[in-house]
Formats: sequence, structure tokens, C-alpha cells
Amino acid sequence: MQKHSDFAEFTEITPSAPIDKARHGWRAKCLQRLIRIDLPVPRTVALPCDTVRAIAAGQMPDTARLIGLFGPEPLMSVRPSPEDPEWGGPGTVLNVGMNAARHAALTETHGAEAADALYLAFVQAYAIHVARLDPDMFAEAPGPGALRAALRAYEDETDTPFPEDPARQLSEVLRSMARAWEGTTARLLREAKGAPAEAALGLVVQDMVLAIAPGLSGSGAIQFVDSVTGAAMVSGRVHLQSLKGAGEKPGETLFLTKDPRGDSLEDRAPEVVEALIRHGAACRARLREEMRIEFALESGELWIIDATRTPRSSRAGVKIAVVLAEDGIISREDALLRVEPRALSELLHHQVDPRAPRDRVARGIAASPGAATGRIVFTSAAAQAAAARGEASILVRRETTPEDIRGMHAAHAVLTERGGMTSHAAVIARGLGLPCIVGASDIRIDLRERRLNAPNGRSFREGDVITVDGSNGEILAGAAEMLAPALDGGFRTLLDWADEVRDIGVRANADTPDDARTARDFAAEGIGLCRTEHMFFEEDRLTVMREMIFADTGPDRRVALERLLPMQRADFIALFDIMAGQPVCIRLFDPPLHEFLPHDREEMRELAEALDRPLSEVTRRVEALSEFNPMLGMRGVRLGITVPEIYDMQARAIFEATVEASRRGAPVVPEIMIPLVSAKREVELVKTRVDAVAAAVRNETGADFTYRLGVMVETPRAALRAGEIAQHAAFLSFGTNDLTQMTYGLSRDDAGRFMGTYVNQGVYSEDPFHILDIDGVGELLNIGAARGRAARDDLTLSVCGEHGGNPESIEFCRALGFDYVSCSPFRVPVARLAAAHFALRDRKQV
Amino acid sequence: MQKHSDFAEFTEITPSAPIDKARHGWRAKCLQRLIRIDLPVPRTVALPCDTVRAIAAGQMPDTARLIGLFGPEPLMSVRPSPEDPEWGGPGTVLNVGMNAARHAALTETHGAEAADALYLAFVQAYAIHVARLDPDMFAEAPGPGALRAALRAYEDETDTPFPEDPARQLSEVLRSMARAWEGTTARLLREAKGAPAEAALGLVVQDMVLAIAPGLSGSGAIQFVDSVTGAAMVSGRVHLQSLKGAGEKPGETLFLTKDPRGDSLEDRAPEVVEALIRHGAACRARLREEMRIEFALESGELWIIDATRTPRSSRAGVKIAVVLAEDGIISREDALLRVEPRALSELLHHQVDPRAPRDRVARGIAASPGAATGRIVFTSAAAQAAAARGEASILVRRETTPEDIRGMHAAHAVLTERGGMTSHAAVIARGLGLPCIVGASDIRIDLRERRLNAPNGRSFREGDVITVDGSNGEILAGAAEMLAPALDGGFRTLLDWADEVRDIGVRANADTPDDARTARDFAAEGIGLCRTEHMFFEEDRLTVMREMIFADTGPDRRVALERLLPMQRADFIALFDIMAGQPVCIRLFDPPLHEFLPHDREEMRELAEALDRPLSEVTRRVEALSEFNPMLGMRGVRLGITVPEIYDMQARAIFEATVEASRRGAPVVPEIMIPLVSAKREVELVKTRVDAVAAAVRNETGADFTYRLGVMVETPRAALRAGEIAQHAAFLSFGTNDLTQMTYGLSRDDAGRFMGTYVNQGVYSEDPFHILDIDGVGELLNIGAARGRAARDDLTLSVCGEHGGNPESIEFCRALGFDYVSCSPFRVPVARLAAAHFALRDRKQV
Repeated sequence: MQKHSDFAEFTEITPSAPIDKARHGWRAKCLQRLIRIDLPVPRTVALPCDTVRAIAAGQMPDTARLIGLFGPEPLMSVRPSPEDPEWGGPGTVLNVGMNAARHAALTETHGAEAADALYLAFVQAYAIHVARLDPDMFAEAPGPGALRAALRAYEDETDTPFPEDPARQLSEVLRSMARAWEGTTARLLREAKGAPAEAALGLVVQDMVLAIAPGLSGSGAIQFVDSVTGAAMVSGRVHLQSLKGAGEKPGETLFLTKDPRGDSLEDRAPEVVEALIRHGAACRARLREEMRIEFALESGELWIIDATRTPRSSRAGVKIAVVLAEDGIISREDALLRVEPRALSELLHHQVDPRAPRDRVARGIAASPGAATGRIVFTSAAAQAAAARGEASILVRRETTPEDIRGMHAAHAVLTERGGMTSHAAVIARGLGLPCIVGASDIRIDLRERRLNAPNGRSFREGDVITVDGSNGEILAGAAEMLAPALDGGFRTLLDWADEVRDIGVRANADTPDDARTARDFAAEGIGLCRTEHMFFEEDRLTVMREMIFADTGPDRRVALERLLPMQRADFIALFDIMAGQPVCIRLFDPPLHEFLPHDREEMRELAEALDRPLSEVTRRVEALSEFNPMLGMRGVRLGITVPEIYDMQARAIFEATVEASRRGAPVVPEIMIPLVSAKREVELVKTRVDAVAAAVRNETGADFTYRLGVMVETPRAALRAGEIAQHAAFLSFGTNDLTQMTYGLSRDDAGRFMGTYVNQGVYSEDPFHILDIDGVGELLNIGAARGRAARDDLTLSVCGEHGGNPESIEFCRALGFDYVSCSPFRVPVARLAAAHFALRDRKQV
Repeated sequence: MQKHSDFAEFTEITPSAPIDKARHGWRAKCLQRLIRIDLPVPRTVALPCDTVRAIAAGQMPDTARLIGLFGPEPLMSVRPSPEDPEWGGPGTVLNVGMNAARHAALTETHGAEAADALYLAFVQAYAIHVARLDPDMFAEAPGPGALRAALRAYEDETDTPFPEDPARQLSEVLRSMARAWEGTTARLLREAKGAPAEAALGLVVQDMVLAIAPGLSGSGAIQFVDSVTGAAMVSGRVHLQSLKGAGEKPGETLFLTKDPRGDSLEDRAPEVVEALIRHGAACRARLREEMRIEFALESGELWIIDATRTPRSSRAGVKIAVVLAEDGIISREDALLRVEPRALSELLHHQVDPRAPRDRVARGIAASPGAATGRIVFTSAAAQAAAARGEASILVRRETTPEDIRGMHAAHAVLTERGGMTSHAAVIARGLGLPCIVGASDIRIDLRERRLNAPNGRSFREGDVITVDGSNGEILAGAAEMLAPALDGGFRTLLDWADEVRDIGVRANADTPDDARTARDFAAEGIGLCRTEHMFFEEDRLTVMREMIFADTGPDRRVALERLLPMQRADFIALFDIMAGQPVCIRLFDPPLHEFLPHDREEMRELAEALDRPLSEVTRRVEALSEFNPMLGMRGVRLGITVPEIYDMQARAIFEATVEASRRGAPVVPEIMIPLVSAKREVELVKTRVDAVAAAVRNETGADFTYRLGVMVETPRAALRAGEIAQHAAFLSFGTNDLTQMTYGLSRDDAGRFMGTYVNQGVYSEDPFHILDIDGVGELLNIGAARGRAARDDLTLSVCGEHGGNPESIEFCRALGFDYVSCSPFRVPVARLAAAHFALRDRKQV
């Protein structure tokens, strides 16, 4: 290690000292700011990262000189000061400088009890953190003889007396903290929080305030907003350690401000509280942040020891940022950048109230955020039955398989004994926006007894009520108190600001009027994907669908479809009305027909009866329509071309609804999207028929309307051939779910079984169904967008897969010049904020 | 229509006349060649295409002047002369110029019967082809009163007398032929044979030889090779029409050369036959082709009317081309170019002997070439049972579904009532090299009675023997006489010549020793794809596979796999021995494990017994392994990474076999190919383990060997990421079957249901599983090859999908600089010849 001459080994923090966050860490910088605004901070010395690195390598600074800065016989604290407070660091060590002489002096001035307590605390911390002795041997509470026992234990274990020299004490403390930073565990922990490999540690050494003293003494913390809601309110406690005989109760804990629950510091010393509030306001204004302030009182004198960013929930984070901006303390741009987009998704779900009591039964991996309460069910069928009764259920399985998807749709949350973040249950639940815990390995499901057995002998039957907290992985007994989604003013204000700066559109995927209302509520700029097939699964429609499937000729199919027409029309009118003139992009029928047919013998028998056809015919038809790989089968535009009556009916329903909704409200220009295209000619054929239907409806109704026909790019071939496809398409919308499946040759429904292994072994850096695969699928987006635009200047480009709401995808699509992304309604706020972030980031770079 | 002044309206064909094939058609050119070699060709006049086009547009040349070229009162024939004889054209019209006066004169010179016959033939042809009257009214045979009746019918129908003026007759004949060429049917027919849209027609007008005459008169044709085998032999007939009373029997048909079956022209007039043979030899030498010569005799004088390319089977085509080259008449290159590569595939299959009697029952669409005889079975199970008994069976189905695939494997041919060229049956049968007829709509399958009912009341039971001729679509009763595959000297000589000129390698896909022997027999340069999974379906191995699947831990799986190791090793030793040092590329295990498990309850029960496990466990495992989209599921390298013991065992088997086979024969450098790769890391992980196994085997055996590890590019992502994948791969082999499925999002097993509609409607110009999709899949090949090569100069590139043997794919791969194509053994000859064609074509262009 070279000796550096170009930096001070340590620097006393004064208003004008050269303290730099990158070099001395956030805490040193923060303390300097407090000093600059004249807060009463005890003398503090900062050790820059270079010094700490040198210490770890064995080169100690001049600690005697350092101690000298604090005057004669000081007691000191040493605290970590990395560049970012999130990166952690070794624990604080207090009372460095304590030794027999200092102990004797303190016994004189403060009494034996106080002197013992201070010395014991130091010996324990030193033994554990510096000498690395067994913590169990140094766990004794203060009391008669405890100090002596600790000193003897230290000598016995180390064969040396406890060090008396404060310089040596400080050197050893610094060395142990510097080395702890370089340990593997510490490194992994901070890297998990985003620290770079070269992240370094600064340290601050501060003069101790002796909070065990005569008169009003003690220590505490104060904050000025509620950590859960972000609302303005003073809170905190103070722990008094005024010495006995000074008219105080030792070890008393007080509220800070007047409180019906008990005594407060305000009652005892209103001027101190007033000073704290004044200091808080100064911090907020000058540090441009809500700060939590640590303070100490020594014989009535107030010292500010430290200040940290007030801890906050996502909800509070939004509120704080918005209020700081509204108060003119930060800019709106800063407010936007202070909120992590993904944090917003928490606000949209129910949360267990963090202030309410929790009866925790077990925990697992928090796989999909939000919380839900419901009755335990162990099978998908039971979940569906519960849904039919209007009851909330929690689907509890060893692990889920593709057959459980209907059950997952029906349940309010999912809990599995096995699996990881990319297990089937986790992947699907995130897609559905369903709270989910996986890998809850402490629980045991006994299917025979229909019981969920938890640790400590607790056991739940099917039908018992539990709460699943998918945000933190906790399983709670009974119905926990919930916080409703926090869509209050702060949330909406922030998103309005986001809309002012973002430069890529955000639409929602919405299939039902409910979805559409949510989309509008979240200010989506239209519907980017309306999947029409869900509309056919409702009981009455399903019967007609099946008649259609069993019809042998085009005309017979047409008769059945005529009966679906008014229902479809009503669906679209409802959507158009809700969206009030905003674009609605309707995807034509996509799934294979066999999805509408029964699969077990009993259901087939019922269907045969309903259709008045022989059972053999029903089973034959079901068999004939079954497919080896339905994902790659007769669906989408393939069905549209071979059974064109379906698209004809849908086009008619869309156009008739357009006429009807336009008469009542804003004019509607519907967007019609063709799924699963792989060749230009498919688009031509569908366009010809849809145009003909449009002409017929115009003719019949006498109303004029326009519409836009586009293509959902889901096959690699459609991306490669986008140039010629765009000749017939007003827009291309990339369906990244299917495109990912086909680019990887990977069925989403089947990938769960090995995705965990794959991500763990780094075969895929991320689950590509979760995070858009920029390298592969992204290249197809790039190729498709470039070729499509080259063929047609005014081509609208978008992404409508579930990736649409992910910040990574938005960044990528924005870079490609896409017009909008479309995502599930609950992801719209995240997408709006993320889009604003990227726009702001670009502005800063310019 | 403009009058062209830059061409003669017609030209008499003389040795020096400016006759040009492109302008006057092949027949005019051919006749000029015959004239140049002094053959006795009657006077002939050629009308160029421009003239014929003008005629169709209403602008008639000077027919009176044209007739004048033939001297006074000629009789003329008019024949079509398009540029290529394959393009067809209107039928020949004879005896133009016949009228009452000429009839009277002929009655004088040749007698009434001859005059009537000549006149009647012309009236009938004129009425039908020129006046477009009902052919049924002009069908009467020559005889008393027939001529008069025909003339009266003509007058009644047209209200005009039959034209007497030869110039008008000729004009009308020319006009009708010119217009017929432009009809839609004629255009579609010739375009189906490859004619361009602008293909034009020339015509030749020739002086009639009056083959009804005193003395030796008549007409016939002679050819000098056998049309089926191509062997040298004179054959043909002459139909004599010597007039009665001249000592001849009228209407006699003779052999040409001495023949035990009857009289011959050689007996009657040896000098004529000698002249014909002389003329034939001259033709062959000067026209550089085997020609069939049409001739006429008028009172003993020999005239050569026309000559056409001798009709020939594919087999004869090969023989003729090779012998012409061996005789020095054409070059080897020309011989190669004269054989269409696809024609070779016919030679590799059994064919019904065209000379043998055929009891034709019905016909359908010839969907996959070759013929087979066997017993009728109506179910796949019955086909499998027959195969188990060693009996040949013909699988007869309404249409096949994916469940029939095992039955198709077991049957010797497939016959379906429904479907077209791209139906499931057709597509699969072509893949399997199985004779197949589809769309045999005349037959009715009665499954209840287990009967095949054919037209004319014929009926066959299950077990009855029939023959399916997949080359021409005929269903024959009983066992037809067959020609064995024609792999004689000509075939091998031609392919040897092909190997001398081609510049892209050809390997075979071969899974079994039988396949490998066929591959070597067809001179494949190694095995490009050896699928190892077939090796696990054999009875004894299947049991062990299932034990492996039911093992719960890696070590347990390893125990089961240890028992498969010696079998796999023996498989590979056999292949290495047969291929004698040529490269063998072994694909590691690919299919999903559930393919090895039973699917019905009874089989599961048996398996539970065999494994000594509860049935519930078996059913649970079967369910757990089942997949929604097996094509996109847990297979290929995904299995290799999650259950690495399988690849470990296979690698060991390969390396131990390498050591063993190298000890006995040529040194083996095995190629190991990883299937279904989508990310670089998959290759790294497998490579690490395979390298470790190689090191272990080297260590245990003390033998040194090398091997090459490569990747099968089957997912679009692997093609896109080929640059980084190639860093760890010695070769990339594109599996175009799966790559097509994923690029289109189209399951081959499920596409049959709509592929017919799609190809008919031009949605896809071709079935992409049949003809490589250059635009989409081809671009991925291009991207993958370019990126792979850029990363690694010495990268070997190839295609191993079923497209590998198609000339279109070979052309494409050659253009991309691929090292080899690999195809089914039976496609190897086609590929070798096609590759030679492309090399020769390039040479000519240079």
C-alpha cells in the first residue's frame, strides 16, 4: 500500500472543511450540513474512504493526534459513513476512551453506577466487535460486579489485560470496522442493495455526549412525518438517564410532544422540544428531505448526534416527495425522481396495516405483492366453488401446475409450500396481480386430512380464515387489518406531474368494463389490448359458442354467431362509453376452439344432451379439435381465415357499437388488431373481409365512421416480415408474451418447472417472461419496428405484452421510438412514472 | 395490333432458313435439324410466335400465299410449336385443304373409301376444334354415309355450308389454334409445367403425306431405347393403310423389327427399317438426344413427319443421360443437368411395373412417391400389430390425426379418403418416405363393417391385400408387380459425376445402423444428425428409462442410467463401425420425459407393478410431467441441465465407443450436438460436464481422442445469439423443422388441419415444412451463419432439418456458404445431384 500524500488522513468537520460525500460518505456530509445550519452537533472528525482502506490494509493513521482534536481525555463514538446509507456498514461503537482512569474520574463526578454502565458498554462492544470474542460471554446487564466480570472474562480469553490506552483502543476499533466492511457477507449484502464492487467506507469519530448525567439527560429521536402515511406529525421518544438524586426517575421513556398515553418531554422541558422542531424544520428546508434526528440531552443541554432520512413506506415516500415539491423545497422533477416506479405498485394493492397486531403463523418467499384474507382451499375446484359463492379464498398448494390456473383466477391469494420467485405459482400470480407466497417450507400440507400444519403445533382446516401478505412473505392467522390502496392526492398529483414530462404513451390492457374503469381511473391513455375471447366464457355465451363449434357449415356457424352478435356489441358499447373517445384496441378472437369444449366425460355427456347430438359425435369433435401444442396451433388469424364467420361477427359488433357509442358521446375510432400473424397475406385476407363488413354497416346505419386495422406481432416471422406486413397495417403492437415463448421455444405454462434452476444457475440472467429479453426478443422488436417504420412513416408502434409495464421495457421501447406501451391497469401508474424518469434522465444528459 | 415489318409472317423450313427456337418454337427448330441431316421431311412452313399472336388478335397472314408454297391443291397438317414441348398446345389438325373437288379427285386416284376417310377426318376435326360444335355429333366412324352425315350436321348447326376454300380453311384452323393457346385452361396447364406468363405459340404447317395409298403405306413411330429402363432397344409399331387391292391387308398393325409376337415391317420391307434405324442414329448424334421418330409411308416411300424426345421414366432418363455422355455425345456436365434432382427420389422407391397389368380400384392424390403392397388395416393399433407380426400393412383412414403417427411408422403405405397435398397424412408420409395417397374421394370407409368400399361395387375387408401407388395416386387390388429401386450403374455413375463438381457437403440423418448403412450406400459424407432418443424406446430400454424417470435423486437416476450405458455404447460403436471414420454427429437426448411414460390407466397400472410403487405415485408423476405445449417445454438442453445425469451417461457412451471403434478401425472424432439451445450459458454448462466426462474416459482407458461439440440451432433466439453461442461451439447445425415451427409459431403436428386452406388461398405460397421459408426462417439462417462465422472463422455450418435434402434449401445454404446439408438417407442422391446442378449453374454464369 502506497502512502498517499494528497489527502488528509482525517478532517474535523467544520462548515468550511473539504468534506465530500463520495470521499467521506453520506454521514460525514450530512453532519457537515447540520453544522452549517448551526445545529448543536458535538465535535466530529471524518476519516475518508482512502484512510479506511489503508487501515484495513494495516496502515494506521495518527490516532493520538486524532484524539487530540477532541481535547483531554475524551470519550468518542465511531460510526460508519458509506456513500449511500442503504449500503449498511459495521455497527456503531460508543465510549471509546473508557479506561480505569476515566472510570475513576467518572465515578467521582457521576457516581459509580453511571461510570460502571459506560465502561461496561464499551468493554462488551470491544470484546465482541474488536477482539471477536463469544458474545454470550459478554451479555451481562449492567449491575453490581458486571463490569469486573467483563474485564476478567476479557483477560481470561485474550491473555492480555483490557487496553487502557485510548489511542490503541481507537486504532483497534477503526481496524475492526475497516475490516468488517471487506468481509464477504457485508459485501454481498450491500451489493444486493445496488452497491458497486468498489464501494468504500468512510468513518466518523464523534465526541460522546454523556447522556447519563445530572439534570435532564438522555437520548432520543424525533421525526416529523408518519412513516406509514407520510402525513405531517411529530413523533418519537426520549429515553431519560438523568442521574438518581437529581430529582429524576432513571430509565424513564417519554413521548416528545403532549400525548394522552403518557408523560412527554414537552411537559418536562417545552423549550427542548421547541428547539428540536425548529431544528427539524431547518433540516427539511436545507437538506431538502424529511429527516429523522437523533439527539442527546446532557444536564439539560441539547445535542444533535446524527440525522437520517426518515424511514418511510412507499406510500409515505410519495406523500413526502409531493409535499416537499408543493412547499417549494424541491422541484417537481426531483419529486418524480425520488419515487421508485416499482414502489407505486405496492400502493395499488391492499396492504396489511403495519401498525396493527399480526398473528404470524409462518413465512415464505414474498412472490407477488399485496395482501388478501380468505378461507383456505386446497384445490382449484374448491377455489372456483368459493368464487361461485362469492367467498374470498386462499389457494394453498404444495406447488401449482398449469391445471391450477383456473383456481388461481378464482382465488384471492396463493400460498405454496415449495418453489421460488420463478416457480409457476409466483410467475402466474404476478401476472394476475394476485398476492402470493411461495416456498413456505415451514408449513406442511396434509391433503388427506385437509389441513395446513404450521410451526409450533398450529394447524388450520380447509375453510379457516388466513391472511397472505405477499409483500413481505408472512402468513397470518385470521383476518388482518388492511390498508386500502393509497390512491390519495399525493399519488395522483405525482402522476399528473409525470404525465407532464413523459414522452411515451401508456395504455392499459383491459378486457372488461371493470378493467376499463380501472384503466381510466389510472389515467391510461386508452386501451392497448382488449382480449375479446374472455367475453365468450360466460355461461350463456359458452353454450352458443359450442353450438357454433359444432355447426358443420359456414351458414350454420353464422346462425349461432348471430346470437352472439348483440352480446359482443353490448360489450364494446360499454368499453367505448367508459373510455369516452380514447382509443380502444380490440384484438380479434385468439384462442383455439377446443378451449371452449368440455374435457371430461360427464361434461361431454351434458353437452351432447344440450346440443341434442350423439355423445360419440361430441367426443369425436373434441378429439378432432385437440392439439399437441395449442400455443402453436389453430388459433388467432389462422382461425380467422379458416372459420371467417367469427371475425365477420366481431367486426360487425365493433362497428355497430362504434355507431351507437359515437351517437351518444365522443366519436369512436376503433382499432382492430389481428393476432398471431406470420405472413402478409393473412392481413390482406382479414382486411378485405373487415372492410366489407365496415361498408355494410355504414350502408345499413347511414353513419360514417373510420377505423384502424393493425397487427399483433407475436411470431418471430411477423417481426422479420414487418416491412411488408406494415403495408396493410396502421399499427403494429408487439405481443411480447408470445413473442418470448416463440423466440426461446419456451412455453410459459411449462417453463415454471425449470425456470428456477435456470435463473439460479445463471442460464438466463432473468426470467424472460418477467423482464423483457433485450438481447433476443428485443432484437426482434428492433427489427420489426425499423422495418415497419421504413415501410410506413405514420405506423403506430407499441408493446402490449405483460412486459409493457416494466421500467426496463419502457426504457427499451422509448429508445426504439415506440408510441406507447400497454400494460395491466394496475401497472399503469408504474409505467407513467417510469416513463417520466427516462424522459428526465435524458433531459439531464442533454 | 401493330403490323410488324421486321419479321417474316412465315418461313419455309430449309437448312439455312432463319428458324429460331425462341421465335418459332421447338418443333420448327427440331424439324429444321432433321432437314439439316438430310432426313426426308415433307415441305414444312413455320409460323413464328409473333404471327400466331397477331392471328389471335385478328390479323391473318396471307394464307393463300402460304398454301402456294406447297404447290397446287395440297393437303396440310397444322401442329403446335411452343418453345418447350412440355407446355402442350392445341391438337394437331390434319388434311387441311380437303374439299369436294379434292375429294372427287382422290376418289378417282385412291378410291372412295380412302377419299371419304380423309375428308371425314378433316370435317370432324374442323367442326369440333374450329367451329366448336358438340363433339358427340361428329363422333361417327368412317363408313358408308358417314361423310355425308357429317357435312349435313355441320350445315345444320352452323347454317353455312362446309368451307370449300383451302385458304379460308387454313385461316380458320390457324385462328382457332392461336386462340386456344390464349384460353385460361391452356394457360393454367402450361404454367403448372413452368411456362412463363408470356409464353407464346408457334405453328408448323406441313405437307401431308398421304399414308392411305397404293403400295406400302401407313404411319408409325420408332424409338431406340426402352421408356421404362432406358436400355437400348428398337421398338414401335406401324399402322398400315395400304389401299385394298394392292395386295395388302388394310388397317394392319405391325411390329417394326422381327418379333416372335407377330409380323414386322422388317419382314415386309427391311430397307425401310434399316433407313429408320439409320435416321435414328443420325438424330441421336446430331440432336444429342434420344428421339422418338414419327414417320409415314406413301406407296413405299419413307417420310419423317416429326421427332420428339423419347418419353421416359425417371430411371430411363438417368440411363439415357449417362449413356449419351459415355458415348461422347454430350458432356458429363450436360448429363448431370439433364436429370432433374427430384426425379431421383422415384428411383429409390419401389414402383409398380408400368408394363404389368394393373387392377385399378380407384384413384386419389399422389401424395408421397413409391408403391407398396400390404394388408388393409383401419387403425393404427392394427398397423402396429401387423408390424409386430412382420406383416406389411396399408393404413386406411378417413384422414389421419397426430395420434396415427405410430401407426404410420408401422405401416408400409397410407391411404386416406380425405385431405390434400398438405394434409396431415401427406405431410407425415413424405417425411417418413412412405408411399401415400390422400383425397381418394371415390372410396368409402365403413369402420363398423371394417370395409373399404370402392366404385363399381367392389369392396375390401380388413386383411385383404391391396397396392398403393403413391407415385400416380392409383389404388390397385392385390399385389402388383413391382420394380425394385433402380440403383444400377447409371444411377451410381451419374452421382459420382455429381460429386466431382458439387461444392457443398451432403450428409445423412441416420438414427440406426440400418439408416447408417443406407447413408453409406448412397455415399453420404457422414451422419449429420443422429437422434439418440429412438434408442430408448426399445422394450428393454424403455423399462430402464422409466425407472430413471421415477428415481428421486441424482444418484438413483445414475444407477438406472448405468444400465443404459452399455446399450448406448453398443449403439454408437455400431454407427462408428459402419461409417468407418466418416463424421458422425450425435444429438444429445431431446424429447420430454413424458414421452416415455404410459398414458392410459391400464398401462399405468402395469408400470406401477413393474416399479413396485403405488399406482397413485405413477399417475401423479405422469401428471406432473405432462405439458401444455411439449414442443416448447422441458426437453433438449433444458433437460440436460436440470437432469444432467442423462447427458453424462450419453457422453460417456459416446467416448467409450470412440475408444473402442478407433482401436478396431479408422480413428473416430465424434461430434456431439446440443439440442434446443436458446442461451450461451446452456452451452457452457453442458460443455463443462462433457469435457469432464471426456477427461475421465481418457484417464480410465489410457486412450487419447478428440471430439467436437456443437449446437443445434432450433430456436430463433439461438440464431440471433449465434455470435456468442459460437464462442463455445465448433459447429452450428440449423434444425429447420423446429426453427420453422417457432418462427411461424406453428406446430407441425397441428398445422395439418389448416395448411391445405392456407396453401390454397395463397396465405403461404408453400407449406413451410415442405419448402424452406427463405423470407423468414431463411433470414434467421442468414443471421445465425453470419454472426457465427464472424465470431469464429473455422465454424462448421450446416442444415439438418428435413428441408436439408430439398434443392431449394441446398441452393440457399450453398449461397450462405454452409459446409454441408444433412437429410434423410433416401434424399441423399437428390441432394448430391441438386448440389452439382447449382455448382454447374454458377460455373456457366462465370
